[in-house]
Amino acid sequence: MPQTNASDPSGSLVERLDLPPLDQGPLDNMTFTVKDNIDIAGHRTSYGSPAWRDTHPAPVHNALCVDQLLAAGARCVGKVVADEFTYSLDGESQFFGTPRNAKAPRRIPGGSSSGSAASVANGLADVSIGTDSGGSVRVPASLCGLWGMRPSLHRISEAGVLPFMPGVSTVGVLAASFADLDRAARVLLRSGSKPVTPLSRILLLSDAMEIADLAVQEQVRQSLDDIARRTGIAVEPIRFAQLIGEDIPLSTCNVGALRDLQTAEFQSTLGNWIETVQPELGVTFSMAYENVRRFDRLSALKSVTRCERLFERINAALPAGTAICFPTTPVIAPLKGALNTLDAVMDFYNRTMTITAFSGVARLPEISAPFLSVESCPVGLSFAAGHYQDEFLLSALKSILAAATS
Amino acid sequence: MPQTNASDPSGSLVERLDLPPLDQGPLDNMTFTVKDNIDIAGHRTSYGSPAWRDTHPAPVHNALCVDQLLAAGARCVGKVVADEFTYSLDGESQFFGTPRNAKAPRRIPGGSSSGSAASVANGLADVSIGTDSGGSVRVPASLCGLWGMRPSLHRISEAGVLPFMPGVSTVGVLAASFADLDRAARVLLRSGSKPVTPLSRILLLSDAMEIADLAVQEQVRQSLDDIARRTGIAVEPIRFAQLIGEDIPLSTCNVGALRDLQTAEFQSTLGNWIETVQPELGVTFSMAYENVRRFDRLSALKSVTRCERLFERINAALPAGTAICFPTTPVIAPLKGALNTLDAVMDFYNRTMTITAFSGVARLPEISAPFLSVESCPVGLSFAAGHYQDEFLLSALKSILAAATS
Repeated sequence: MPQTNASDPSGSLVERLDLPPLDQGPLDNMTFTVKDNIDIAGHRTSYGSPAWRDTHPAPVHNALCVDQLLAAGARCVGKVVADEFTYSLDGESQFFGTPRNAKAPRRIPGGSSSGSAASVANGLADVSIGTDSGGSVRVPASLCGLWGMRPSLHRISEAGVLPFMPGVSTVGVLAASFADLDRAARVLLRSGSKPVTPLSRILLLSDAMEIADLAVQEQVRQSLDDIARRTGIAVEPIRFAQLIGEDIPLSTCNVGALRDLQTAEFQSTLGNWIETVQPELGVTFSMAYENVRRFDRLSALKSVTRCERLFERINAALPAGTAICFPTTPVIAPLKGALNTLDAVMDFYNRTMTITAFSGVARLPEISAPFLSVESCPVGLSFAAGHYQDEFLLSALKSILAAATS
Repeated sequence: MPQTNASDPSGSLVERLDLPPLDQGPLDNMTFTVKDNIDIAGHRTSYGSPAWRDTHPAPVHNALCVDQLLAAGARCVGKVVADEFTYSLDGESQFFGTPRNAKAPRRIPGGSSSGSAASVANGLADVSIGTDSGGSVRVPASLCGLWGMRPSLHRISEAGVLPFMPGVSTVGVLAASFADLDRAARVLLRSGSKPVTPLSRILLLSDAMEIADLAVQEQVRQSLDDIARRTGIAVEPIRFAQLIGEDIPLSTCNVGALRDLQTAEFQSTLGNWIETVQPELGVTFSMAYENVRRFDRLSALKSVTRCERLFERINAALPAGTAICFPTTPVIAPLKGALNTLDAVMDFYNRTMTITAFSGVARLPEISAPFLSVESCPVGLSFAAGHYQDEFLLSALKSILAAATS
């Protein structure tokens, strides 16, 4: 049964820590938490699985990203819950509980960086570092009303982060304010002072809009009207087929492309361990893993090739200066326990991953902004930019916010 | 003691295999070998270390890159020797022996993809897949007279490849002919048919030339004169400081940048395992590992930031159409047993890594071409291009070769 912890109403902590800064720097006075698939020296990393934790010794070194934050002046205040093997988008862990969605407590927080989101949204820390392979930073950021950034693939070092899908996975950041997101991300990205191209064009990915609930679509429109009025940049709707110059639907990024690459890589990293060790698995993960086990790797090879073509075409359409936006998730957070039928699960996952796979397959940096609200529940508006345009994207969001307050 | 194998005079095989193609394709009739840090289903992966091999079960799945070659029509004929933990450039394994340098049998083959190079140069296979973090594909290619490609960082999937330094390591290819290198690389890179910019500019990195032995420099000059005459493209010498617009030496790419990133990441991947398991280590690796153990991670954070700046500046100077060349290694292969003093080791490693760190820090694709010969021993001439310009680089080499035969 999940452990409950009276001293942590957020339900996000695996372990409360107090690791002081290693130096002074741009993150002085900032606190952060660490998702439990990222190494902290001397503490076992669970990867969301008690079986993994109990069969792997504590690391001797912090992950490089943890050291980056500590050396820039930040203080680590805890290790936080991850979904089992980070292989989920809902944040309901059979082993570590469901961290509290502070702004919608009857609803799930989203995952797999569920503890990262809950620790920040409940005020335990200013920022949290998580990981994102299929949406695991962006989805909880959207559902909990936080800023969340998935950077360009491999911009942040994954050294000391547990077996990843190397063609898909990134280290990402969640924060309650844009200022904190920006500060922490620039340290992790090792951003320089090179001037970036100003934001001059905002596209709206129509296909992602159409997947979203009508109330979410309406909120996106209002928010973008507001942004257009304040920045003077008219938002241009564009279809996926038009963007890449080929008549295929947005769902191609997921089905027959990124999802197969994820599954094949998951077999090659965690799959080998599960097949040889036969650890105790949670009920939900076991069901999902059956699909991984039965997956036909040869069919995946066509998909990994398709990923490369989509990467090329999407990036050719996103030069510096251009951002593309869409709802981060098509829905607000489902009620706890609502994902209890196959239909409900498939609807949530298929719709969500059709959107999140866009940046995934194109290796884009994406920032989910907490700009929308439906039925008093938060939902994110995402902005993405070309591969390696992380600093442009951060600056673009800064200019949008500056226009809002000026 | 190293095992000797009368049926394998190349000394490259860890295990002879015969894995038939999984399908027909562009690699029909091609044979390949696999470095022993890349998973082959049902066979334990040693990582060059008997201690690692004996404590890790056999993988259930092939690495994705192995499946890519099999599915494109190639046949896998063996698992080949890697230096211990791939942490070497010399190819003299205490545990698995020193694979034979076919063109210079009294000399070392170079490492850590020593078995990959020896298996191809001795005619056991058409191509081999290896890995390259600090030069481990390029150096044995240079010293054994083969074509060797280190692709852009992360262009080839690392799923099923043993713990890598994620900010540095790549899967690469070695071949005896350019045609075979090109065919295999395009499958692994998932290259499309998009037209590439033609080669219009060839730079020569002067600082790398000055590090090389005089006889190697003379060979580079002759080769480039020949290329200039045949392609009509004059080769332009350029200093590193001039290339990046800052007055720092080429060695900055290695010392205080890439080498520190490598060491910090090595701590976070293999280091944790060694510290907690305390396995039996080889004599040479033990000495090298002492430096890893004593390494100050905090100083590495400055270096990882410097890597990002060097990446930006070098790539800004290498638009599509431009290739930059330099001797792959500053020397021909040292005689076996010659790296037996600290001075000899330091001279070989420091000079070599000053050159190899250039593409490493900038995440460039680099191809070592077997164009040079000194004292009847081979040495490579390398061509590098901008990050993700892998297909341009392959096409550029093809056009240079076409000019040679026309």
